[in-house]
Amino acid sequence: MRAVQLPRYDATPTLAEVPEPTVTGPLDVVVRIGGAGVCRTDLHIIEGQWAEKSGVTLPYTLGHENAGWVHAIGDAVTNVAVGDPVILHPLATCGLCPACRLGDDVHCANARFPGIDSDGGYADLLKTNARAVVKLDHSLQPADVAALADAGLTAYHAARKAATALRPGQKVVVIGAGGLGHIGIQVLRALTPNEIIVVDRSWEALGLAEQLGAAHIVASDGSEVDAVRDLTGGEGAEAVLDFVGEGGAIEAGVGMLRRAGNYYVIGYGGELRVPTIDIISTEINFVGNLVGSYTDLAELMVLAAQGSVTLHTHKYPLAEYTRALDDLDKGEVRGRAILVP
Amino acid sequence: MRAVQLPRYDATPTLAEVPEPTVTGPLDVVVRIGGAGVCRTDLHIIEGQWAEKSGVTLPYTLGHENAGWVHAIGDAVTNVAVGDPVILHPLATCGLCPACRLGDDVHCANARFPGIDSDGGYADLLKTNARAVVKLDHSLQPADVAALADAGLTAYHAARKAATALRPGQKVVVIGAGGLGHIGIQVLRALTPNEIIVVDRSWEALGLAEQLGAAHIVASDGSEVDAVRDLTGGEGAEAVLDFVGEGGAIEAGVGMLRRAGNYYVIGYGGELRVPTIDIISTEINFVGNLVGSYTDLAELMVLAAQGSVTLHTHKYPLAEYTRALDDLDKGEVRGRAILVP
Amino acid sequence: MRAVQLPRYDATPTLAEVPEPTVTGPLDVVVRIGGAGVCRTDLHIIEGQWAEKSGVTLPYTLGHENAGWVHAIGDAVTNVAVGDPVILHPLATCGLCPACRLGDDVHCANARFPGIDSDGGYADLLKTNARAVVKLDHSLQPADVAALADAGLTAYHAARKAATALRPGQKVVVIGAGGLGHIGIQVLRALTPNEIIVVDRSWEALGLAEQLGAAHIVASDGSEVDAVRDLTGGEGAEAVLDFVGEGGAIEAGVGMLRRAGNYYVIGYGGELRVPTIDIISTEINFVGNLVGSYTDLAELMVLAAQGSVTLHTHKYPLAEYTRALDDLDKGEVRGRAILVP
Amino acid sequence: MRAVQLPRYDATPTLAEVPEPTVTGPLDVVVRIGGAGVCRTDLHIIEGQWAEKSGVTLPYTLGHENAGWVHAIGDAVTNVAVGDPVILHPLATCGLCPACRLGDDVHCANARFPGIDSDGGYADLLKTNARAVVKLDHSLQPADVAALADAGLTAYHAARKAATALRPGQKVVVIGAGGLGHIGIQVLRALTPNEIIVVDRSWEALGLAEQLGAAHIVASDGSEVDAVRDLTGGEGAEAVLDFVGEGGAIEAGVGMLRRAGNYYVIGYGGELRVPTIDIISTEINFVGNLVGSYTDLAELMVLAAQGSVTLHTHKYPLAEYTRALDDLDKGEVRGRAILVP
Repeated sequence: MRAVQLPRYDATPTLAEVPEPTVTGPLDVVVRIGGAGVCRTDLHIIEGQWAEKSGVTLPYTLGHENAGWVHAIGDAVTNVAVGDPVILHPLATCGLCPACRLGDDVHCANARFPGIDSDGGYADLLKTNARAVVKLDHSLQPADVAALADAGLTAYHAARKAATALRPGQKVVVIGAGGLGHIGIQVLRALTPNEIIVVDRSWEALGLAEQLGAAHIVASDGSEVDAVRDLTGGEGAEAVLDFVGEGGAIEAGVGMLRRAGNYYVIGYGGELRVPTIDIISTEINFVGNLVGSYTDLAELMVLAAQGSVTLHTHKYPLAEYTRALDDLDKGEVRGRAILVP
Repeated sequence: MRAVQLPRYDATPTLAEVPEPTVTGPLDVVVRIGGAGVCRTDLHIIEGQWAEKSGVTLPYTLGHENAGWVHAIGDAVTNVAVGDPVILHPLATCGLCPACRLGDDVHCANARFPGIDSDGGYADLLKTNARAVVKLDHSLQPADVAALADAGLTAYHAARKAATALRPGQKVVVIGAGGLGHIGIQVLRALTPNEIIVVDRSWEALGLAEQLGAAHIVASDGSEVDAVRDLTGGEGAEAVLDFVGEGGAIEAGVGMLRRAGNYYVIGYGGELRVPTIDIISTEINFVGNLVGSYTDLAELMVLAAQGSVTLHTHKYPLAEYTRALDDLDKGEVRGRAILVP
Repeated sequence: MRAVQLPRYDATPTLAEVPEPTVTGPLDVVVRIGGAGVCRTDLHIIEGQWAEKSGVTLPYTLGHENAGWVHAIGDAVTNVAVGDPVILHPLATCGLCPACRLGDDVHCANARFPGIDSDGGYADLLKTNARAVVKLDHSLQPADVAALADAGLTAYHAARKAATALRPGQKVVVIGAGGLGHIGIQVLRALTPNEIIVVDRSWEALGLAEQLGAAHIVASDGSEVDAVRDLTGGEGAEAVLDFVGEGGAIEAGVGMLRRAGNYYVIGYGGELRVPTIDIISTEINFVGNLVGSYTDLAELMVLAAQGSVTLHTHKYPLAEYTRALDDLDKGEVRGRAILVP
Repeated sequence: MRAVQLPRYDATPTLAEVPEPTVTGPLDVVVRIGGAGVCRTDLHIIEGQWAEKSGVTLPYTLGHENAGWVHAIGDAVTNVAVGDPVILHPLATCGLCPACRLGDDVHCANARFPGIDSDGGYADLLKTNARAVVKLDHSLQPADVAALADAGLTAYHAARKAATALRPGQKVVVIGAGGLGHIGIQVLRALTPNEIIVVDRSWEALGLAEQLGAAHIVASDGSEVDAVRDLTGGEGAEAVLDFVGEGGAIEAGVGMLRRAGNYYVIGYGGELRVPTIDIISTEINFVGNLVGSYTDLAELMVLAAQGSVTLHTHKYPLAEYTRALDDLDKGEVRGRAILVP
């Protein structure tokens, strides 16, 4: 089968002919790829930034946001059948460690991460396990939802956590209405009746946020803290979801937070730096967010099937992967780039 | 190997020589039994009360409260090794259905229940899966804790649920200080600082309850509702754990409950019968309780290893199973009867 | 001022000229009534059904669902000013007892209930306290929202409790789409993305439910349990909100509930009657619901101001109170009857 | 009456004769002081560090940790009677703002803080309101518990929050076993069965921690992170309560935290500084903690009455306030200094 592989770091990936993955264990699932998201992380992998962290042996196949159809299953697989359309949770988890037993499979002690530490989805077929596959509603096409598998799932996870703590009438700020943020807005819209205030540098992103249901949009031009405080009666918002996590976003975001509020850290790159006196005197919390659980992904697919969460995608044939990577690198992809085998 | 099997309903179980179970799937675990609890349910099974519900094909091996040492494991088992002392969760669950994915494995859509619907632990060896085995601390002996696998786990599950909702200074009533109830008292004692009021018909049971930390004991002689209301300033208790669930226990128990209180239904046999006006005007809740989850069992073993939860046991050699069943039937077992192969 | 008073039980209320209530305590609030809901409970009060329960001294002024404008305030009132439009929480609570201190003011140990145990809102003015008044958004007219003060608040309280426990993709059944139920549907619609299945005897009520966002409507004609199980893959719904609570509704409702599901008891009149074995083997819960808290009412007003919860009302001048009561008694009020002074 | 007043900043407080406070509002409560805690904050106030923050007009009476007996009450006070022994919540709250209505009275929008922004308890009498007084069990003496009113309450608040999130078998680290920390240890001991690991620089503090029930004590000598990781199987603890919040404590504390763990910020002075990548990749949370609520204080008094939380105190007659302040400044008070009028 065809697979886009990374031969060595800092090199252009190559389209290789490789053996098809086969079912060898009873919980194995081989998926025919319908779409694989092309993500900024892939650019970082190619540059070698993940070499040490992932420990993967080159060459290997890229692609960690995948959806498709079940191609083959092991003996013990009961949750999907051959032919089922599925989206893949990024992790293939063990189901045995304490975290998995609590339903907190993101913290599985034995997870494998296809596309990061083993062969991914820029290929005709990919091998994962039964614990990673979420069956899709027939109204959903794999290529349309593939990019929800990782980026979308992270946004869902944080937004649902925030929704659980919010009460009607409280306000929520979303910093950054880009790839993850615009999913976060849609999820908040679907799960809560709360007013959403969106902060971004780009007027285009703010325009999209408004279409998606933001009650207020605020340009990130240095006056955003004052603007948010004005929109919240001078008190700040009960929740801030920070999809940026670097530059001045954190300092600004903390300034927008109300007493006893929750600050959800999702974006990263910068440093959280707050005097402890400020944390205790206002009794605020900082909440870390990694990707969501399997159940989170199943729930996100419910919202997608209801039409509450949608994604702009630009599809490229698998063979045109270099164009997709280049377009992404140049910032020329509108929405998310998807490779279709 | 030896196995105590039920040849047909309403017959005496027989000690048979049967083939040893072997590992056939990658998540299989074969356990050398160290102790198997003899439970009132076993008497009901023999009488045929469970015939339709379990659908088991006779002959089969009894025993659903099991602990021992790992004897053999499948390829994919990562949580235990051969030789490990283990206690067995009653269910061998799938790990794939929505309930399992939320950590709520008790409601697994595909569970097997050794000793009920397949071969159990009145034998030298038993086959379950990796999702059912909890590794024991070295301070614990399998035969000493086996009876915590089902009865104890049910009591833990309900008591922990109650503990989570209780605040210091609130009061909790335990109705029935027998097999399950006396575990419930110990769990409440370990998890909360709340005053426990124990209600039972038997002065012996009440004496034991007092030793285990009950703040007040109340004889169930018709005056128990008044007695509990006196002990709670006329208001009733914030939580009632009903380990009886039949006879007059329910009516009495509801009478002991405070406004906005929680009534935990654990024992069964009778009927809950309450006018809806009483439910809404006092805003009380009735909370069902089945056996606990795998995580609950792991936590109960922590309390057992700390010495916070202990159990009186009476051990019988496996070959003397008829004596154990007879003693149980006659009410002559002090604590729990355990078969030791 | 004018006040519709009950001179004695089983008599027609009279329109009397009575002294205006005045501020005597520092937390007192006197409200000029903008609208007072006419409720079935008022008919029961007139008939004397509440005589013993309320202990009120006759004559007294009816009306327990009130909204209007602040007319006068005591020295210590800081949350409203004269002229503010307000809706009144049914209870004037103490703010000092343990329940009040936890925010659970519905269980206040010292509450007064205007319209039930003291003078109510069928009058030009009513006296309550600062802890009962919720300031209205300027988009809301007191007479339009008055009926949300008690009936609507009960529906909100139960629906929000249910919403908190529901996850996307789960299903919720509403039994009874009448006065309370149709508010419950709107609240669920505003707070959750869950599919709502509405069960009622009346096709008119079901038609309204569909307009309000019910995903499925089911006629309560004896086949409703099967119908709901069909709509839920044979499993039943994760939540059932029972706004009827009598007749066959309870038995049917329990039959529609999924394993580990929650049954919210809101309507009353009948008896909850379930074998304890059914409660524990499926691990279901029964959750009582009284009226909501002050915070619940403030939140419901947020949804009303957003236009997410609306109410059909039929307004009568205060002097035509007998016509309003008669119309209600004959079932001829479309929506809720409101007396406007 | 006598009162220790601060005439101007940076001056020695004086023992003045001032008019007795009297009941002027219906919710007023005047308390005869039984004991007033002498706290490091008092030293800071004298130095003028709080001048701007509190905005208090000098001279005024110091003392913000108070207990005593009810001396006089306003008309509307229903929760205490003259003569009742009471401990005082530090804040006199309004009971009307949204925070108060949720039971979160610490974030009251209109609170007064006796001893900080108005006359405190270094005096014969102090005036507060009904919402601040918690009635004491007869087994408790006001002078023995006074210091629990603020410092102890903060420790309780954080420890209970942590206890709520912990499951049996998880580990909790307490950094700093001083004034607040040693209360925190006792509260954790009372509310949870979890192993407590205590980290401190002082062997004396560690010795006390061991007596109070710490499972492990670790010297804060630079090797504490490794020591804690060794005690937690290399994974870190699920909860860290940081009662220091400055120096190297924060960096060390974060290093002791397990994936998905909670870091409770209680002590202050330093700066929390963590790369956002570390927050999201391990999905950890930072939880701010201010003083506890009224309900928290009532619960802490339950633990005190049970003997689960005790405090070493050193009592000084009111007139010897300079000696008490000096001893505190020199670090010569064993336990907490209490002024007794």
